Amino acid sequence: MIPGQGLAQTPEPPYYAVIFTSLRTSGDQGYGETVDRMMELAVQQPGFLGVESVRDPQTGLGITVSYWKDEASIAAWRAHGEHRQARERGRSTWYSDFELRVARVERASRQAR
Amino acid sequence: MIPGQGLAQTPEPPYYAVIFTSLRTSGDQGYGETVDRMMELAVQQPGFLGVESVRDPQTGLGITVSYWKDEASIAAWRAHGEHRQARERGRSTWYSDFELRVARVERASRQAR
Repeated sequence: MIPGQGLAQTPEPPYYAVIFTSLRTSGDQGYGETVDRMMELAVQQPGFLGVESVRDPQTGLGITVSYWKDEASIAAWRAHGEHRQARERGRSTWYSDFELRVARVERASRQAR
Repeated sequence: MIPGQGLAQTPEPPYYAVIFTSLRTSGDQGYGETVDRMMELAVQQPGFLGVESVRDPQTGLGITVSYWKDEASIAAWRAHGEHRQARERGRSTWYSDFELRVARVERASRQAR
């Protein structure tokens, strides 16, 4: 499965979630290509556990939740050069508004049929 | 703004996030009406701080993140009668797969332009 295209398979808590909610500006402006590249890179990072991502094409509202082993793995991904550049373009070009929250997942329950 | 239709306005951390990711079955079967009712009820609950929700109509993947003051407010909403009934229909009818994670938000940063 392509990362972010379905439900993430995460281990037993505790682990960390990075909740990124955003509103897109209009026009692609290189966004789609960069998202694909960031997904490709993220899954290779130490401590990466999974990602779930949805955007409503009509409203531009998107939610991406990535899951990480610990705060150190989040910090390392945050310091990655290509990721830093992508965030800069996000701030300048792709998002009219966003919020990033870092949270410690304390419990989880799943149902699959 | 309609709850869940934009970015939530949350206070300074710490607070709690309930991350609900799901895959919808096909057909509405009363789903849309119940979502509207649950949003209407949720915002009235003590300790409710906000909600963000997106579903991709093509893949059926949805992410709803609701924010709460503390674990007690999450537990009270979980025990609400109408919410319990809605969850039961979710399990039996509306979702082919879902995961619910409860997480403590430790830090947050926002940019609005």
